[in-house]
Amino acid sequence: MSVKKLPCNASELEAIAKEFGTPFHIYSEKAIRENARKLHQAFSWAPAFREHYAIKALPNPYILKIMQEEGCGADCSSLPELILADKVGMKGEEICFTSNDTPIAEFAAAKELGAVLNLDDITHIDFIDKQIGLPELISFRYNPGPLREGGNAIIGNPEEAKYGLTHSQVFEAIEICLARGVKRFGMHTMIVSNELNVEFLIGTATMMFKLAVEIKNKTGVELEFVNLGGGIGIPYKPEEKDVDLFTFGKGAKAEYEKIMVPAGLDKVRICLESGRMMTGPYGWLVAKAIHTKSIYKNYIGLDACMAHLMRPALYGSYHHITVLGKEDKPLDHIYDVAGSLCENNDKFAVDRALPEINIGDTVVIHDTGAHGHAMGFNYNGKLRCQELLLRENGKVELIRRAETLDDLFATLDFSNL
Amino acid sequence: MSVKKLPCNASELEAIAKEFGTPFHIYSEKAIRENARKLHQAFSWAPAFREHYAIKALPNPYILKIMQEEGCGADCSSLPELILADKVGMKGEEICFTSNDTPIAEFAAAKELGAVLNLDDITHIDFIDKQIGLPELISFRYNPGPLREGGNAIIGNPEEAKYGLTHSQVFEAIEICLARGVKRFGMHTMIVSNELNVEFLIGTATMMFKLAVEIKNKTGVELEFVNLGGGIGIPYKPEEKDVDLFTFGKGAKAEYEKIMVPAGLDKVRICLESGRMMTGPYGWLVAKAIHTKSIYKNYIGLDACMAHLMRPALYGSYHHITVLGKEDKPLDHIYDVAGSLCENNDKFAVDRALPEINIGDTVVIHDTGAHGHAMGFNYNGKLRCQELLLRENGKVELIRRAETLDDLFATLDFSNL
Repeated sequence: MSVKKLPCNASELEAIAKEFGTPFHIYSEKAIRENARKLHQAFSWAPAFREHYAIKALPNPYILKIMQEEGCGADCSSLPELILADKVGMKGEEICFTSNDTPIAEFAAAKELGAVLNLDDITHIDFIDKQIGLPELISFRYNPGPLREGGNAIIGNPEEAKYGLTHSQVFEAIEICLARGVKRFGMHTMIVSNELNVEFLIGTATMMFKLAVEIKNKTGVELEFVNLGGGIGIPYKPEEKDVDLFTFGKGAKAEYEKIMVPAGLDKVRICLESGRMMTGPYGWLVAKAIHTKSIYKNYIGLDACMAHLMRPALYGSYHHITVLGKEDKPLDHIYDVAGSLCENNDKFAVDRALPEINIGDTVVIHDTGAHGHAMGFNYNGKLRCQELLLRENGKVELIRRAETLDDLFATLDFSNL
Repeated sequence: MSVKKLPCNASELEAIAKEFGTPFHIYSEKAIRENARKLHQAFSWAPAFREHYAIKALPNPYILKIMQEEGCGADCSSLPELILADKVGMKGEEICFTSNDTPIAEFAAAKELGAVLNLDDITHIDFIDKQIGLPELISFRYNPGPLREGGNAIIGNPEEAKYGLTHSQVFEAIEICLARGVKRFGMHTMIVSNELNVEFLIGTATMMFKLAVEIKNKTGVELEFVNLGGGIGIPYKPEEKDVDLFTFGKGAKAEYEKIMVPAGLDKVRICLESGRMMTGPYGWLVAKAIHTKSIYKNYIGLDACMAHLMRPALYGSYHHITVLGKEDKPLDHIYDVAGSLCENNDKFAVDRALPEINIGDTVVIHDTGAHGHAMGFNYNGKLRCQELLLRENGKVELIRRAETLDDLFATLDFSNL
C-alpha cells in the first residue's frame, strides 16, 4: 500500500489554484530532496555513487538545479537536454549522454561538455572517431537480448529493443577502442521501465557485475563505472508498494561484494539514471471540473487534457485522483474523468469510483512529476500548461509559464497567405 | 490495392531534400485540390453541400487556404483552430465548432465569428445561454450509443465514447432551445474514424436522415443541415483500397431520396467534416538514414522520430515506406526503421521488408498529411520539423519552419536559476 499525499494541505492547494489559475503541474521541492537523499544513503556504500537524473522525465531547469544541489548528475538523450544540464552547472562526467540513432552534432556537443559518451551501437565508435575523434572515456550500452529473460511491458523484451550492444559486441567494441587509444571505460544498461520488483533490479546489478568481471578477464580492462540504468518503478496505484531503496542498495551491495570485490574490482563506481522514481510521485496536475455530463456513462470534464498528461491515453496508465475538500467523502460515484481533446482516449480515468464531483471542484491528479508535462503535445491546438514549484519554505514559484497562442503559432508566417 | 505515389518524381524529391534539409513533411497542392474537387463532385447532388475540413488533421494555414479556395469550410475543435479558420478568410457558418468539455471563452470566440456551435452535451445549452446567450442557430452532436452497433478501434464503441447527446436528449435539447428562442437547427454525428467500408459510411447517412425525419415529426423542426461527420478512411497499406467517394455520394443520395425527400426534407443541406481523407495521402515525411545497426534485429536509424509522426508508436499504425532511387529493388531486407527517441516504440516500421538501405539514403514515409506534424511532441527535447508545400507549378514553399532551441525553451526563464 502507498499513501497518496498532496504537496501541501488541501486549503493551501486551493489557494495556489486560485492564485495561479488551473491547470498546472506543481512539484514539491521538499519531497524531491528527501527522496534524492534517501537514494544517496541507500548507495552510500558504493564508491563515488552517482545518480544521473534522467532529464527527459521532467526537463525543467529549476528541478535540475535541485538535483544538482543534491549531488546528482544528469542523463541526457539529446542536445536540448545537454544544454539544460550545462545551464544548471552540471560538469563533465556528471553528465552521461545516452542516446540512440544520434546525429554527430549531438555527440560533438556532448564531447565538448566533457560528458560521458555512452554509445548505443558498435558502429558509433567509427562514426565518432572519423568525425570528431574518440574521447579518453567511452561507455557502452549493453543489451543482453535473450541472455536476460523478462524486460517489461513498457520497454519490451530486451531482444526486441532497439538499444545497445550484444554480449559479443561489447568485447569487440572494447578491443576496437583500445586499439584506437581509448583509456577509460564504463558499461551501462537499461532494460526495464517502471519496475516495482526489487529482485529484478538487483538482478540487473548481478548481470552487470558479472559482465564487468568478464570484461576484465577477457580484455584486461577494469571498468571505471557500471551504470545500472533506471527503471525503478513508482506505485501509481494505492495498492502498490514503492521500491524500498535500502533493500535495493543492500541487495546490490551484497552482489558487489560477492562478484566485484573478489575480482579486484572494488573501486568500480556504481551509477543509476532514474527519472520516474526521482520526481514522479512529487508532481501533481491540478485542474478544475468545468463540465458534468450524463449519457451512457457519467463524465466529469476538466480544464486539463492529454496535452498536459499523456500517460493514461498513451499507455492506459492509472493515475490516482483526489478531489480537494472531499478526501473523506465516500467513493460512491463512477465517472470517466475526461479532457477536451477530440480523441476518445483523452480520459484521465475510466470507470473510477470517486466522491460526487461538482463543477468548480479542484481535481488533483497524482504522480505527474515524471513523463507528465514533458510528453505534452499541441494536438487540437491545445496549449501546454504552467509548472509550479512549491519551495521548502512554502513559497510557490512559477518555473515554466503556460504556452500562449503566440508560442503555438511561432513557427508559422501568416504574411504570405 | 492502392498505389503508393510520391509527391513528385524521385530525383525532384532528392533535390528538395538537398535544398531544405531533412526531415520535413511535404504536401502536394495538386493532389489536395484534385481530391477536394472529387468530393464536391460526388456530393454535387446535395443541396449546398459543405465539407468542413477538420483542421486538427493538418493545422497549417497554407493548407487551409487551399481548402477555402476549393469551397471547404472548417471543423474547429479549439480557439487556435478558430483563429486559423478566421485567418484564411473562412466566414460565419463555413466554420463549425465541434468541441467537447469546452471552456466558455471558446464558445464565445466561436459565436463572435458566427460559427456554427455544435453542442456536445445537453447541459451546454444552459451553460451558453447563461454566460453568452444562445445564437439563432444551434447544432447538436448525436451519439447513438447502443442504437448503432460497431464504431471502430480508434473511436471506440459509441456507447463508450464521451461525445454527444443520447437519442432522447436530442429531442429534449431541441425543445429547450425552441423555448429559449433558437430558430435554426442542425444535427451532427461522428462515430467512426479511418473507416474504409463505404457501407458503414452510408449507414451513418441513413441513421442521420431517419433522425432528421423523427425530429420533424416529433418537434416540428426542419433541420437546416445534417453533418455526417468525418471518419472516411484512407488506405495506409498498399493492399487496402480507398473509399470510392462517388459510391459514398451515390449511396447517400439514394438514402436521401428514400428518407428525406418523402418527408418534405428536400432542402436539408449535407455536411461532412473529413480530415484524414482530405490531406492524409497527400503528405509525406522525408528523412535520411543516418545509422544502420545489427544486434538481435537489423535497424535503420532515421533523422526523423516519433516527434514528427506519432501514429506508428501511438497506434501501431502502418505507414508505407519508399527508399528513393530504390523503388525497383527487391524487398529482400527485413528492418526495424527507428527514430532516435529513448522510447522503444519510436519505430516507423517493425520487421518491414525493404530494399537494402545505406546511410545517406532518403527514406519517404507515406500518408503523413493528416495527424502527422499535428500530433508531434517535444519529448526527449526533440524539435518538430518543417513543413513544405509543393505548389501546382512545381515550386516548393516553406509553410512552417522547423522549431529551434529558442522555441523549445520559450516558456522557461533561466534568469532565476
